[in-house]
Amino acid sequence: MVTQLESAREGKITPQLEACAKAENIDPELLREKVASGRVVVEAAPKHEGLKPLAIGEGTRIKVNANIGTSPDRVDVKVELEKLRTALEAGADTVMDLSIGGDLDAIRKTLIENCPVPVGTVPVYQAAREATDKGKSVAELSPEALFEVIEKHGEDGVSFVTVHCGVTIASVERLQKQKRVLGIVSRGGALLCRWMKHNNAENPLYEQYDRLCEIAHRYDLTLSLGDGLRPGCIADATDRGQVEELIILGELTKRAQDAGVQVMIEGPGHVPLDQIEANVRLQKSLTGGAPFYVLGPLVTDIAPGYDHITGAIGGALAAWAGADFLCYVTPSEHLSLPGIEDVRRGVIASKIAAHAADIAKGFPGASERDLQMSTARANLDWEKQKECALSPRPFENYRESSPPQDSDVCTMCGDFCAIKVSREDEKQGNRQ
Amino acid sequence: MVTQLESAREGKITPQLEACAKAENIDPELLREKVASGRVVVEAAPKHEGLKPLAIGEGTRIKVNANIGTSPDRVDVKVELEKLRTALEAGADTVMDLSIGGDLDAIRKTLIENCPVPVGTVPVYQAAREATDKGKSVAELSPEALFEVIEKHGEDGVSFVTVHCGVTIASVERLQKQKRVLGIVSRGGALLCRWMKHNNAENPLYEQYDRLCEIAHRYDLTLSLGDGLRPGCIADATDRGQVEELIILGELTKRAQDAGVQVMIEGPGHVPLDQIEANVRLQKSLTGGAPFYVLGPLVTDIAPGYDHITGAIGGALAAWAGADFLCYVTPSEHLSLPGIEDVRRGVIASKIAAHAADIAKGFPGASERDLQMSTARANLDWEKQKECALSPRPFENYRESSPPQDSDVCTMCGDFCAIKVSREDEKQGNRQ
Repeated sequence: MVTQLESAREGKITPQLEACAKAENIDPELLREKVASGRVVVEAAPKHEGLKPLAIGEGTRIKVNANIGTSPDRVDVKVELEKLRTALEAGADTVMDLSIGGDLDAIRKTLIENCPVPVGTVPVYQAAREATDKGKSVAELSPEALFEVIEKHGEDGVSFVTVHCGVTIASVERLQKQKRVLGIVSRGGALLCRWMKHNNAENPLYEQYDRLCEIAHRYDLTLSLGDGLRPGCIADATDRGQVEELIILGELTKRAQDAGVQVMIEGPGHVPLDQIEANVRLQKSLTGGAPFYVLGPLVTDIAPGYDHITGAIGGALAAWAGADFLCYVTPSEHLSLPGIEDVRRGVIASKIAAHAADIAKGFPGASERDLQMSTARANLDWEKQKECALSPRPFENYRESSPPQDSDVCTMCGDFCAIKVSREDEKQGNRQ
Repeated sequence: MVTQLESAREGKITPQLEACAKAENIDPELLREKVASGRVVVEAAPKHEGLKPLAIGEGTRIKVNANIGTSPDRVDVKVELEKLRTALEAGADTVMDLSIGGDLDAIRKTLIENCPVPVGTVPVYQAAREATDKGKSVAELSPEALFEVIEKHGEDGVSFVTVHCGVTIASVERLQKQKRVLGIVSRGGALLCRWMKHNNAENPLYEQYDRLCEIAHRYDLTLSLGDGLRPGCIADATDRGQVEELIILGELTKRAQDAGVQVMIEGPGHVPLDQIEANVRLQKSLTGGAPFYVLGPLVTDIAPGYDHITGAIGGALAAWAGADFLCYVTPSEHLSLPGIEDVRRGVIASKIAAHAADIAKGFPGASERDLQMSTARANLDWEKQKECALSPRPFENYRESSPPQDSDVCTMCGDFCAIKVSREDEKQGNRQ
């Protein structure tokens, strides 16, 4: 196996990189340089049939991920397939299968089979679930089993795996010394921490990092270095535990890249508005500009039910500051497993954040669709507006289900529609 | 009548100002200075019975306004009262009655009667509607009739009126010289522009500004100097027409304040992320730091149906940069008159933006509720979380309607709940 990173270093423009360059409207040679330097990853899992390759990182369009998957309380593959369909329709660039309930192998294979975009996973979930299914505690999970699961995910065509390699004895100690309001809020982080404490041993994903890189290399599996110690509330943001973990992830980024393995870095979490830019700059600086994959960030803790909005605020600002990849947050975050409608709303909120950042950064062509929309508005052309919109559904739900008397305008302003008034005056002026 | 501005200049701490200082947890003398300098307005319309006074501006909590009101297509006072109730329940700090359909006097009086927070209006709507109701064109509206409506609104207890005084022959010419994708998108701006063109005359709100100030003074009615030339799309943002109008509003701010009248400045509109801070700083600089009341701003044009989210992104950034007052945007913006559920979602989105900015600015006590929420999360105390939340409804809709098997956790993570895992490990650690 020659990974995309290795090919790029050798000066080769692979067909997958070429396809990404075309999709991004970027010069392939420029993209190759960015991949070679580790600032962009090309998701092109060879085992994923029908996968459309995707570039993530500096200078590319901001991407959006949708987390789907079962939980112990909710296992229904049909629902998960519908979530997948919904996420894709709403514009998700990648999907993560975070299933922790049901037949995990079957669910993952089914989702990948039906998914044209890169799929990510968190293998420690499956390893932990298989241990508990056998009546064992998570602490009894064998590192062997964990690495076997990672290998299996690569074999199945997973594109990127979240691995919480920075949850180490040192970083957890630092976290505990500082004390936190909300401790560890990452599922993977908490599970690994339990394992480490009970076994009084180092995190196997850290201790056997070379082995992890070997597996990743075999499948050109991107290591998405997880932030197991991310802050779970505003009060814990950007604390010493979080930053210690990020420093370790920076070291691990270099090691993986030296081994020819592509890397992304996962980021917070709950972060107040005024700390978002600093978090992004810190990540870029400590990891040599590796792609930054942020969860939200959520700019307040008090809005359960509306965290797709708190996440869109933080995500827009993070992406504008340099984050590359936004993990969506749904309205059900902090309350329940997301349903199908939550998936739709979560993806759209994150797409808005991503697009707003692309406009602000002057990404080539980003504001073209906005211009088309605005021109359609100026022409009172409602069909064209519907075409230009991020989603046509609201036109059906709002306008078409309860139409205005005058089909030129809408029920908000009626005959006082500013655009109609201005248009009429302009026409009259031209006639005079 | 001695206005709040005049009292403050005389060194007096009025009971209304005192109440505001208490609500904001600010030193009354400091607040008085800010009011005296025009950097804060105190909304305390003497004719509005039962009104709770409200301070808006520098150093106070960010406020949120909800626009309600009828349209020619939708006239139902009961629905408007329900929108009012919903807006207040969701946390709106002020409400604007933008009715343009039905018996406008009766609707306004009913809303004010039932409203404990300041009410704003746009009198030119009523003046224009009364002209068209008589079969006249808006161009035939008499300036006398417009000033009579403004007086009537003051008499009824309106707290602030939007007056598009900066839509002048000069600023409109400048706008037209530059050309725009979307021209004028403000209803009031478009109506006044029509009047000016057809009568070949200056805007009466500009020409007779002293008379406007006299009326405003009589009722301590805050002039909310409207941005009739605000950009209606990303492509038109921060153009010469918009900035010309803002310069004029700066001059008018000074004139009103010299006449003892309180002033706010209304702002855009559609603005890309990277221009928001500049817009706020420009407004503060050109108007001597008058309170800035922004509509959104919307950071992309392509998200009809989700513009409460695009508005929350822009609003959070604007408020963090120094804007004081966020006019909500609802999901129905650009599509139809908002319904009751749109009002709720619009207010909550703007409250999130306002609160995120208060946290980022370090407003005293702003993050206290976030800390309570996070502590409740750490304790897996779901009742307390519901109490701390911006809205308790999502707890009912998500969690209580479809509860998890284990009542400690939620259906997302189940037994893999990071917080539960960490808590158990900690307890076990303590026992060892």
